[in-house]
Amino acid sequence: MTDTFSALVSPKSVALVGASEDVARIGGRPLRYLREAGFGGSIMPVNPKRETVQGLTCHPDIASLPEVPDTAILAVPARATLDTVHACLDKGVKSAVIFSAGFAETGADGQRVQEEIANVAREGGLRLLGPNCLGVMNPAKGYYGTFSVVLDNALLNPGVVGIVSQSGAYGAHIAHLARARNMGISQWITTGNECDVDVSEALDWMVQQPETRVVMAYAEGVRDYERFIDALEKAQSLGKAIVFMKTGRSSAGAVAAASHTAALAGSDSVFDAVLRQYGAHRAASTAEQIDVAYACATGNYPTGNKVGIFTLSGGFGIQLADDAESAGLDVAPMPDDAQIRLKEMLPYSAPRNPVDATAQAVNDLDLLTRYVRAMMAEGGYDLFAGILGTAPTSKTFAEPLKRAFLAAMEGQEDKLRALTITAPADVVRTYEDDGFLVFEDGKSLAGALSALCRFAEGFARFKSRKEIAPAARLDLGKGPLSEARAKEILSRAGLDFPPEILVPVGGDVAGAAATLGYPVVLKVCSADIAHKTEVDGVAVNIRTPEDAVRAAEKIERRVREERPDARLDGILVAPMVGDGVEIIAGVTHDPVLGPVVLFGLGGVFVEVLKDVTFRAAPFDIDEAHRMIRDIRGFPMLEGVRGAPPCDVDALARMLSDLSRFAAAHADRIESIDLNPVRVMPQGQGVMPLDALIILKEEDSR
Amino acid sequence: MTDTFSALVSPKSVALVGASEDVARIGGRPLRYLREAGFGGSIMPVNPKRETVQGLTCHPDIASLPEVPDTAILAVPARATLDTVHACLDKGVKSAVIFSAGFAETGADGQRVQEEIANVAREGGLRLLGPNCLGVMNPAKGYYGTFSVVLDNALLNPGVVGIVSQSGAYGAHIAHLARARNMGISQWITTGNECDVDVSEALDWMVQQPETRVVMAYAEGVRDYERFIDALEKAQSLGKAIVFMKTGRSSAGAVAAASHTAALAGSDSVFDAVLRQYGAHRAASTAEQIDVAYACATGNYPTGNKVGIFTLSGGFGIQLADDAESAGLDVAPMPDDAQIRLKEMLPYSAPRNPVDATAQAVNDLDLLTRYVRAMMAEGGYDLFAGILGTAPTSKTFAEPLKRAFLAAMEGQEDKLRALTITAPADVVRTYEDDGFLVFEDGKSLAGALSALCRFAEGFARFKSRKEIAPAARLDLGKGPLSEARAKEILSRAGLDFPPEILVPVGGDVAGAAATLGYPVVLKVCSADIAHKTEVDGVAVNIRTPEDAVRAAEKIERRVREERPDARLDGILVAPMVGDGVEIIAGVTHDPVLGPVVLFGLGGVFVEVLKDVTFRAAPFDIDEAHRMIRDIRGFPMLEGVRGAPPCDVDALARMLSDLSRFAAAHADRIESIDLNPVRVMPQGQGVMPLDALIILKEEDSR
Repeated sequence: MTDTFSALVSPKSVALVGASEDVARIGGRPLRYLREAGFGGSIMPVNPKRETVQGLTCHPDIASLPEVPDTAILAVPARATLDTVHACLDKGVKSAVIFSAGFAETGADGQRVQEEIANVAREGGLRLLGPNCLGVMNPAKGYYGTFSVVLDNALLNPGVVGIVSQSGAYGAHIAHLARARNMGISQWITTGNECDVDVSEALDWMVQQPETRVVMAYAEGVRDYERFIDALEKAQSLGKAIVFMKTGRSSAGAVAAASHTAALAGSDSVFDAVLRQYGAHRAASTAEQIDVAYACATGNYPTGNKVGIFTLSGGFGIQLADDAESAGLDVAPMPDDAQIRLKEMLPYSAPRNPVDATAQAVNDLDLLTRYVRAMMAEGGYDLFAGILGTAPTSKTFAEPLKRAFLAAMEGQEDKLRALTITAPADVVRTYEDDGFLVFEDGKSLAGALSALCRFAEGFARFKSRKEIAPAARLDLGKGPLSEARAKEILSRAGLDFPPEILVPVGGDVAGAAATLGYPVVLKVCSADIAHKTEVDGVAVNIRTPEDAVRAAEKIERRVREERPDARLDGILVAPMVGDGVEIIAGVTHDPVLGPVVLFGLGGVFVEVLKDVTFRAAPFDIDEAHRMIRDIRGFPMLEGVRGAPPCDVDALARMLSDLSRFAAAHADRIESIDLNPVRVMPQGQGVMPLDALIILKEEDSR
Repeated sequence: MTDTFSALVSPKSVALVGASEDVARIGGRPLRYLREAGFGGSIMPVNPKRETVQGLTCHPDIASLPEVPDTAILAVPARATLDTVHACLDKGVKSAVIFSAGFAETGADGQRVQEEIANVAREGGLRLLGPNCLGVMNPAKGYYGTFSVVLDNALLNPGVVGIVSQSGAYGAHIAHLARARNMGISQWITTGNECDVDVSEALDWMVQQPETRVVMAYAEGVRDYERFIDALEKAQSLGKAIVFMKTGRSSAGAVAAASHTAALAGSDSVFDAVLRQYGAHRAASTAEQIDVAYACATGNYPTGNKVGIFTLSGGFGIQLADDAESAGLDVAPMPDDAQIRLKEMLPYSAPRNPVDATAQAVNDLDLLTRYVRAMMAEGGYDLFAGILGTAPTSKTFAEPLKRAFLAAMEGQEDKLRALTITAPADVVRTYEDDGFLVFEDGKSLAGALSALCRFAEGFARFKSRKEIAPAARLDLGKGPLSEARAKEILSRAGLDFPPEILVPVGGDVAGAAATLGYPVVLKVCSADIAHKTEVDGVAVNIRTPEDAVRAAEKIERRVREERPDARLDGILVAPMVGDGVEIIAGVTHDPVLGPVVLFGLGGVFVEVLKDVTFRAAPFDIDEAHRMIRDIRGFPMLEGVRGAPPCDVDALARMLSDLSRFAAAHADRIESIDLNPVRVMPQGQGVMPLDALIILKEEDSR
């Protein structure tokens, strides 16, 4: 007995409902492909109008099938789909693929029909793929439950690369590109309108298949983040790479426009954060997606990011060094003494790194072998990147040249070896067959190697990670919450705040200020006033008792004028903190993912440069450190213009504590703003100067 | 009579010195290629050891040649090169290509020999290409003066794309890629060590050839900026595109480390600025270089950047919209009423932009034609970008599908039409033959179309540009120059400064402050003190006469302690300017290019984010406006957080005036620093608060 998901992707028997004699039609193509691939299971065409289809016995309807198929392919019009699903249920079929469009994507009517189909299927225990999808492929099994024209000229080779795509067209496109790049496919699943199986589930299943080493995925969005994150974690734990194309960045436009934390979290930013957090690679282009998946297909990941660049041409060497540095690889120079030895072997060579052996190096292949062997033995490189250019163009020379490199790297088989070659595809193939990764473009090579390094880091991180302790559940009371109350709650969650004194209306403001020491800040404290500056509710840099009294009176007067309805708790007196670097931190509630933590530098960094980063809550201190280093303005926290380095450890602790608190109270918290927070010099902690917690609406009043 | 440069690239007769019978050797390959290409001129092999070479009569030496060849290809060892050059001169040969390596790239000895060869040739009137180069190709003439193995399997097709490359290997690489992309080559020149002909001259010549529409260029650096800029301007004036790959960005690391203007100008930044200023495209990768050149090869440039995206698949449409927006194209929505009409034609379509016709659109090609015609007629798009995906995979369908689009765009032949297609190369070729640009990747398509728009803007800008009036020559006197003197000079050059009073030592500082109005700033004024804050020579925010007197005394005391040698002119009293946005501007002298103007926002923008931009001096106000908009932090000048918009017009005037002054005094000025400058609210000008002019060393003392 096959489990239902495997029944869908790896069936032993298949019914094709709406089977057609015409191999160019939707109902004809799957049959043609299955037969061309020599599918080993039983194929049962269903069509009431025919005795045979493409030479196979045809059945008038699902009820008459001689056995219950593992899966049914429904190549029937949208309007006939519901009845066909009923027929599948009556027969006891466990999985089906719905090709037809004309459902949710067309509007409310289509949406309704689609939901009815989904409900009927779910109640009857029938798993559905689609509708409006291109189906599934499983080349190793010869199973092609698809009508994609991408197979018109050739089927796919079996291999280690899985493909999961919401969009059938995109899935077909990358299958085509992968095939052209000599990559074999393990499974291929398109989810379309996702009335049942979605990208998260397909991904989750696919990363667990032993033959799959890397998955190329495509989605416009994710419906089920829990399962999605689960799939990403499974991939990390198994050392498998996920290379994602996510479209719909334009919603980042929303991020660009906004200036406060609640509006900063667009769904695209959140998606991006989750991929980063759980070690998947987000490709910026389809070409990059293919390049990175191609590199991952070896299953061989580097232990470090030091790359030795070998070149026969100085110009290409400089170009690749540029690209490697941009991609974050370490183009570390050869040790000085090793450079001297290399220079003795090949006097015209420039053996720093890039190691430029010049075109002359190919005149003596034994020498070339010794030279490259010395480079890799003494350079301490994790990765070898060689630029061969047109040298292997002639097929008679390509083979001895390749053997020279293989000999040079004997005993270093664990090290990744990548090449750029300008030569015909069949020559490239011979290099690939001997374990070289071959790229046409140095930039692609550098980007792919860099992605491998990040995957390797992610796998190692996953191995060493500890369970995140859940935060204690606190009684948040009823909203709205005043600043003082928000700070009190967050203090209990582990955050540190500067000392503050809440002075009741008409109380001794000057006394409180004297206790804290001048200069001080005065702020109106009211649960009804979320944005204090808008009602002139803040006075900064107060230096004398007289100024303190006058400022407190003015604040009270203004607030009463502006917001006569607001209940005043009093005036918060706080020390003036001018040191350190200003940052903002916050929590937003993503409608799909749940609580998301935001971090950025204050002021223009967020408002003009949109230099913010996100993480799904909760996360640990290590992840917080990575988060802090995401932003372009990070050097600000290391100390610039003679400023001392900031207490980044304390900041990481604060962000992690904030994330744990947010996760533990996800049901109650709409958003949190800590703005501004001053990150003090090393050892002096962080000072959140303001805090705002907004509870979810049902809680607020 | 052929001019010498044409003799090199388009010779009517050629001698091959060092001719070899072996078609795989450096001295054999050119002969093989010339014969395969059916070169029409006379070919004269030279080799003292042979009677014939590859079937042609061979001559013992250059002296014995039956005629004076237009060019000589020297396939001789480095050590024989000088003698061979002498022999060429004796014969009266006007141009030669030197293949051999072993010259300047190997060290001082090689450099010496190379210089001797260059001197001998220059004196005798012999133009040289190389040494250490791969030579030239001119496919239309069947002339292949090269030993590149890139021709091993096929020659190049003639066409409109020129290639100029310092690196022979890179030149061969992009020739290979261009051939694979169905692009024909007009001329191909590699310059190698550039002992005579350099990239600038080759580029200058190539853009003037009528058959060349676009040039792909490669350089690690430029020796002659005057000629280089001249070539870029000629290209702009002729409406020809230059697509540049410049390596050596790593020197941008120097930019990254530095915080003051003098160190900020790395040669790579300067190169980058010049390309931007003169409308050439700098490619970030070889793939991008090929894509952009491919798009430019039509010679058809758009009149605007509004792109209509047509797709058969929703997912691809979103992806291309993302990419187009990122690339700076305008994905403007269809007018509302036009959307209604499109929706009536194809009820399931989503006709906003991207216009998603869904896969169903291909079921009725007449309808598809009407639909696309309406889209382009009513959308007002300058560019059409269509995503066909796998639809044209079947060759029988590819043709009618193509005709449907051609019919839709009848009468709109001026509009650029680009497609992404996932189909075999021969199908793609048929679309290209009918005027479609075809890309595999949407991101490549978007980047290339965006580059076309920028080229078009550059061509238009060049047409409408006016001569830049040279600045008047001023007497700068002897250096070093004090702040007051620097401001006086720059005032005469047209820059505005806030009013200031120079009070001699012991003079009436309080009186001067009263004249200007409090608060004021006091600054030590001394030609010997370039960095005033380092000697505590500045006091800001002085609010009373007592404070003014005390601060002046303290400055004098401190300066006398720190720099007893310095001649004090006195104390500069200036109003305290706190409004506006802080920027920095400056001039540096690039060793190759000459005076370069720098601009950036002050503070962290320059120091942490390296958000600066450069221009070659002089430039006009329009160019200054473009310069100002280069930086990421530009929104700061438009007003953020409720700040008023800044006087960007005044800033542009200041930068242009500064550039004209710098150009007029390039012989005397080492650097200028205006740091900080406050850009005041609109209509209130700019306030350079400090000015430092450093004269060139020979002038300073």
